[in-house]
Amino acid sequence: MPQELRAVDWTGTGLALIDQTLLPHRNETMTVHDVDTLVDAIQRLVVRGAPAIGAAGAYGVAIALIEGGRKGWTEAETRAAVARVREARPTAVNLMVCVDRVMTRFDEGLEAVLEEAAAVQREDVAANRAMGAFGADWLLERLQQAGVDRPLRLLTHCNTGALATAGWGTALGVIRELHARGLVEVVYADETRPLLQGSRLTAWELVQEGIPHYVQADGAAAGTILRGEVDAAIVGADRIAANGDTANKVGTVGVALACADAGIPFLVAAPTTTVDLSTETGNEIHIELRGEDEVLEWAGVRTAPAESRGHNPAFDVTPGRLVTGLVTERGVLEVSAGELPLDHLK
Amino acid sequence: MPQELRAVDWTGTGLALIDQTLLPHRNETMTVHDVDTLVDAIQRLVVRGAPAIGAAGAYGVAIALIEGGRKGWTEAETRAAVARVREARPTAVNLMVCVDRVMTRFDEGLEAVLEEAAAVQREDVAANRAMGAFGADWLLERLQQAGVDRPLRLLTHCNTGALATAGWGTALGVIRELHARGLVEVVYADETRPLLQGSRLTAWELVQEGIPHYVQADGAAAGTILRGEVDAAIVGADRIAANGDTANKVGTVGVALACADAGIPFLVAAPTTTVDLSTETGNEIHIELRGEDEVLEWAGVRTAPAESRGHNPAFDVTPGRLVTGLVTERGVLEVSAGELPLDHLK
Repeated sequence: MPQELRAVDWTGTGLALIDQTLLPHRNETMTVHDVDTLVDAIQRLVVRGAPAIGAAGAYGVAIALIEGGRKGWTEAETRAAVARVREARPTAVNLMVCVDRVMTRFDEGLEAVLEEAAAVQREDVAANRAMGAFGADWLLERLQQAGVDRPLRLLTHCNTGALATAGWGTALGVIRELHARGLVEVVYADETRPLLQGSRLTAWELVQEGIPHYVQADGAAAGTILRGEVDAAIVGADRIAANGDTANKVGTVGVALACADAGIPFLVAAPTTTVDLSTETGNEIHIELRGEDEVLEWAGVRTAPAESRGHNPAFDVTPGRLVTGLVTERGVLEVSAGELPLDHLK
Repeated sequence: MPQELRAVDWTGTGLALIDQTLLPHRNETMTVHDVDTLVDAIQRLVVRGAPAIGAAGAYGVAIALIEGGRKGWTEAETRAAVARVREARPTAVNLMVCVDRVMTRFDEGLEAVLEEAAAVQREDVAANRAMGAFGADWLLERLQQAGVDRPLRLLTHCNTGALATAGWGTALGVIRELHARGLVEVVYADETRPLLQGSRLTAWELVQEGIPHYVQADGAAAGTILRGEVDAAIVGADRIAANGDTANKVGTVGVALACADAGIPFLVAAPTTTVDLSTETGNEIHIELRGEDEVLEWAGVRTAPAESRGHNPAFDVTPGRLVTGLVTERGVLEVSAGELPLDHLK
């Protein structure tokens, strides 16, 4: 993948988004010039992944300003449009944080707003690069201590790459860094039901990078780990509580349990913006229940009986005691070994 | 579901199989009259589930005899055809055990072979009924000791019901027994990728029985258990080693790890024919790797990139230390508590 791959990019007059609903079969970019289209793109998952949504929201303030100028909106109308962007996905905290940050420069006008949005994007990429290096260094040292002195067999869940962020990736960024050092033998990419971000998006990114990989059913992860076919698992995070409990895509905690049982590292890679010190433990994290059709259907075709109900939690919580390492842009915290609380990260 | 539902049934001249690849949308039966068709049906999972495959294999000896008579095979040719049935799938021990049992009467001719195959089928149903009662009694006693005194919230993986056996079911048989006693609040049925036996088959059986249930992604199982939404998990088995290590549908060991972490019972329900004392531990169990397209495609539509490879183990091995109870037609062994070896089961 060219390093300039951007799920979210400012063209000078509009916001270019890779339409992730079409991957891996079609790699098409849509350019957004109005707020309605942006809100729809966020809700339809044209752009997804908390940091990528945050960057899209940041540029959304500029889109509202430009559209308002074109259509003669009052300031109140422009602010209302920004509010719709901010609430396009109410559970993605990055979206609100990034919109609010750019809005601090709203009164300075379009140029300042674009400057701030670009800073949001630039800083996310820089954080991901730092995470990649810290995570790779830590993992190599730890695995060498365990006698693993060869290219690594890694497992990941969901998509945490360039597509999910402003660029480079979080957990996939660590994998990309290890690959750049010639130290990846193979990546097991869990397909990540129900929406298949693993088989559609992670696999696509791995193909672009030329990283050898297998797609596997989510249920295969624990067995693959217990059979000794994996050296470490690396995942991202949607929210991390003060005690290290980590909310991430549903299926993550099963990977963590298998890593603990097998005695291999379970690494969470996420920027410090993901750490929410106001949430004490994972028990306080609200788990979004998504529509049941996502699990009862496959690509619009019903697979379960018409009478069946679906249970579709979008996330699960991995207890901090199972998180061997938390990689942020500042370094690695060995959470399960007691490096807590996370206060100094903020 | 009428109790006479049979996944595998002898018509008098051929073997009637419910084509499980068509469920839940179409309930159609195919009748098999030759060995090639039977082997193909077993490999394509028209018939699946270790005990159902065992019963199909038992009748397969009769099919080989009849086909051989029709085509003028030598005894060696007929025996070779039986050997192909016996080896149609490698992981489930029942297929080999049942074929071998019927073959002890091969020299007595077709009538004796059919008598023995019918006995295999009849005894499997009886074993399942016994397992259902033993499993239900044990689970209720154990959960009452833990203070659970209300209808149960159960989790199961794959399909272990009437469709997977000669009738009634193993793990699903325990659930049916509990439901008959009015003691099931809800069943979480893992969808069981890649072939969706859970959402297609288990959900279909639960609908027929009127048992309240949710279908969920396999990745949701661990989180659902850790959040305290499940009182016990019950699964089947394809092969159980002498130390209690249990091969079952891929995804099972992740359920077992979550149950152990949450401190709830993990129950394996399987007839004693599934116990293979010649296999000392799970390390010796051959895990069938199935075609990668099963995980890269859905219903013929590619979901992963064309360049991606798939990793598709059909089974995993749950260590005996995670098996709280092993229910057979003779009672319950508390394997993780040290009730080993399993020799007295034979």
